[in-house]
Amino acid sequence: MSLTNRALWFKDDFLHFIDQTLLPLEEVIVSTDSFLRVNEAIKRLEVRGAPAIGIAGAFALALSQKYPLNSPSLSEAYDILVNSRPTAVNLRWALDRLVKSLGSDKQNNLYERLLAEAGKIHEEDIESCSRIGTHGADLFRGAVNILTHCNAGYLATGGDGTALSVIYQLQKRGMLKKVYADETRPLLQGSRLTAYELHKAGIDFMIQPDSAAAYNMQLGNIDAVITGADRIAANGDSANKIGTYSLAVNAAYHNIPFYIAAPFSTIDLNIADKSGIPVEERDPSELTSVKNIHVTRSDYPVFNPAFDIIPAKLITAIITEKGVYHSPFRFDEPAENN
Amino acid sequence: MSLTNRALWFKDDFLHFIDQTLLPLEEVIVSTDSFLRVNEAIKRLEVRGAPAIGIAGAFALALSQKYPLNSPSLSEAYDILVNSRPTAVNLRWALDRLVKSLGSDKQNNLYERLLAEAGKIHEEDIESCSRIGTHGADLFRGAVNILTHCNAGYLATGGDGTALSVIYQLQKRGMLKKVYADETRPLLQGSRLTAYELHKAGIDFMIQPDSAAAYNMQLGNIDAVITGADRIAANGDSANKIGTYSLAVNAAYHNIPFYIAAPFSTIDLNIADKSGIPVEERDPSELTSVKNIHVTRSDYPVFNPAFDIIPAKLITAIITEKGVYHSPFRFDEPAENN
Repeated sequence: MSLTNRALWFKDDFLHFIDQTLLPLEEVIVSTDSFLRVNEAIKRLEVRGAPAIGIAGAFALALSQKYPLNSPSLSEAYDILVNSRPTAVNLRWALDRLVKSLGSDKQNNLYERLLAEAGKIHEEDIESCSRIGTHGADLFRGAVNILTHCNAGYLATGGDGTALSVIYQLQKRGMLKKVYADETRPLLQGSRLTAYELHKAGIDFMIQPDSAAAYNMQLGNIDAVITGADRIAANGDSANKIGTYSLAVNAAYHNIPFYIAAPFSTIDLNIADKSGIPVEERDPSELTSVKNIHVTRSDYPVFNPAFDIIPAKLITAIITEKGVYHSPFRFDEPAENN
Repeated sequence: MSLTNRALWFKDDFLHFIDQTLLPLEEVIVSTDSFLRVNEAIKRLEVRGAPAIGIAGAFALALSQKYPLNSPSLSEAYDILVNSRPTAVNLRWALDRLVKSLGSDKQNNLYERLLAEAGKIHEEDIESCSRIGTHGADLFRGAVNILTHCNAGYLATGGDGTALSVIYQLQKRGMLKKVYADETRPLLQGSRLTAYELHKAGIDFMIQPDSAAAYNMQLGNIDAVITGADRIAANGDSANKIGTYSLAVNAAYHNIPFYIAAPFSTIDLNIADKSGIPVEERDPSELTSVKNIHVTRSDYPVFNPAFDIIPAKLITAIITEKGVYHSPFRFDEPAENN
């Protein structure tokens, strides 16, 4: 099985995905038609990234009905899957959409009908990623050096990614000089996953410590910063991986544009501003050990927020599949580039 | 042998030092009267930090003459020691001072005479650290939360440290609320060494990812940033561990004072400004592996600068043993707090 620039794909009645926990040191593709195996993959972060989790969950719900004589009920399968990553909004959204697509007939040809809807979700995400890439690349004139943080690439989505989709599009247009990828402590999604994608794509890149980003801006090596987002409030305040806020402050100080690339569904119009976005703290062991090896004492107290919040005033523009929104953000109005 | 709050001490004709490569998971004190063992300790970073290396080297040069019937010549010992860390300015300075102290008599009682001068260097550094702590603490009114980066504590010096000496003095005065210690990628001097010191001292502290510092400022948890410096130019531009520049930019954005604490000897009046400070790049493996375990592919390109440079305009004040210098910096004039 050859690797493709997708986190997952459905073919010949099997779901195939890259085990991201092993990247980039091992490239293992898992092919399964067991919904429980997909459920495990979501739990173990073999599949990660909000859109990718939603799509994997959708295919898993379909697969749960592949063998009618040996299947859990649809609601049993739904309950198992929705609890694999309880905070993953996209997962619940995708599962609900599949169930709703069945209408009143929840008995006949469930596998085929669920599979068709899961495929639609996947196709829509591929199209959305592609549009984000085009709209984002349209913002630039001439060749540029880009800084990105964490992984907002194809590994996190069904398609080409969000922030990295813009980078891939710039490369296609011959407008990409170099990408600097923050390693992204504590879980190193940058030096592991973004580096993997950029290396595969033949893009000129360097990994750097998160703390070197500002110095690299001072040196004049960065023309723009592009990151993904986990959640965007109605006023444009955006939550993303810890460290993104520091980049936004430093970008403003160095007069470098700071862009967020995300599907329009990331924007939650029910949240007025950053005060409505909760920031979870993650396990202290992420700082005190690496790959289960202690790097410092596990009883030292740790501040380990999962996200930080970038106030809208520090965001130059938000790139969505609908087009580009510039500050001040009015998401109820049409975007540019439509 | 009980642990003390010193990186090294000379007692009963032996040099004793904590092996910092093992901290904080193991607390091993090495006691030796072999100058070659001290030489190895400097090479292997068992002893680190510019002032601590200078003092260890000075005691090592004395120890090289402890057994006259079985000693290398003074110049042989000098050559071996000065090359253990070729870029360590303090090491060469300390060795030169010892040789110079001998005057024309380079034959008689070498061990005792060199030892006396090494002891003087150590005593002076202890006094210097203490004064830095006092002058620094005098800057504050009321209890504060402090953010620091890397390790500028007793482990890096002969005395109480520089930035951490200020913190210890604040604690003595009952004016310290909490210390946030950046873990300091790539070598984790913050989560390993600074955390070790703060824990030992009973100080309330938390380790955080370097990239979380800005978010913690946004939350209002930081009243001041204090770091050490490796080199300071005549105009106040300062080089310190990579990540310090990002802290200075973020401190300015959040209206938080940013202080540097360093011995006056760190100021190089022969360097006009930051353009005269070279920044070395360190080995890529520091990013691609942790404790010799690969975290990503070792062939990925890496940007790994050892230091960055904080322009003088972002530095609120520089704290030295002579007193405090405020921006704009005029180091040829008397400092405050004298």
